[in-house]
Amino acid sequence: MAGEISGIQPWVRVGLSKVYRTRVFDVLRQRSRSPRTGREHEFFVLEAGDWVNIIPVTSSGDVVLIRQYRHGVEDFTLEIPGGMVDPTDASPRDAATREMLEETGYGVDEVIPLGSIHPNPALQANRCHTFLARGAQKQTTPSFEGTEETEVILEPLARIPDLIRTGRISHALVVVAFHWLGLREEAST
Amino acid sequence: MAGEISGIQPWVRVGLSKVYRTRVFDVLRQRSRSPRTGREHEFFVLEAGDWVNIIPVTSSGDVVLIRQYRHGVEDFTLEIPGGMVDPTDASPRDAATREMLEETGYGVDEVIPLGSIHPNPALQANRCHTFLARGAQKQTTPSFEGTEETEVILEPLARIPDLIRTGRISHALVVVAFHWLGLREEAST
Repeated sequence: MAGEISGIQPWVRVGLSKVYRTRVFDVLRQRSRSPRTGREHEFFVLEAGDWVNIIPVTSSGDVVLIRQYRHGVEDFTLEIPGGMVDPTDASPRDAATREMLEETGYGVDEVIPLGSIHPNPALQANRCHTFLARGAQKQTTPSFEGTEETEVILEPLARIPDLIRTGRISHALVVVAFHWLGLREEAST
Repeated sequence: MAGEISGIQPWVRVGLSKVYRTRVFDVLRQRSRSPRTGREHEFFVLEAGDWVNIIPVTSSGDVVLIRQYRHGVEDFTLEIPGGMVDPTDASPRDAATREMLEETGYGVDEVIPLGSIHPNPALQANRCHTFLARGAQKQTTPSFEGTEETEVILEPLARIPDLIRTGRISHALVVVAFHWLGLREEAST
């Protein structure tokens, strides 16, 4: 690898405390020592379990998208199904297919791992694991539990780049999912 | 748009309080009423200013990447330059070129907006604005202020897909940046 590698060193954590808890993340205060200056600094990071998302594609080439209300932006977004890996999920793959069934009513036989990503390595250590569901088929109606409510919207796979370009799809982790899918298609041609 | 649109309604926010403050984000507690059940629920979201990142490409086709320690994952990551839009930045574009100069020592004449994204619409309302810096040239050495320290690593643009595929680049917002770049290249061919 080309470049100007000067051999920077990792920080050394000297303290850690949980300063705020919520249902989906906790806030941790780290105290760490700079390898460059020797001084200690405070960093605030989020602790959260891993996340999953999944691209359901029907046998006729439609992507099963969901429209749902998101409380961060206080607006509706267009996304692929996804969510948190629950303690009851045997694996990220099981979490992804569970979320797909709950949010879209679609099930699938073939689930292919596409990749995993750090949603934000500056602020959080967790990963989002992304899957492709090939041959997704409607099995039931979405089940809305607690605060969830979704609308299912089918879009041809070929329209996804336009939905991203125009900002209709605006969620970074959804764009990453389609990027993984593109890399996979490139590799197989 | 095909699909099963049932006309889901937005939630109504009935309360908001700031429950924790940090240097880079605050934690807000929202209380909102479900349009479906009429019940009120609590949601915790992050308040943060907008973020920027920028893909510096040299005239010989190398991408100027940085290796830096990230406290969320407590490890080094390989990224493009980026950061927060500061109150002193006149625009996201200025913030991006400032971060590029600080973190890599590279400057540029031509800065092209690629797109903007919600890092996580479930948890936060802010956006990350992404730019392309064409013809990036080394102007100075990176300036390390406070807690920042970066190593500059040049990689041919053609190697980026491999760096993403192998997980060497693992930051969602960096993958999104290269996705925007790919969409732009597709549109111009």
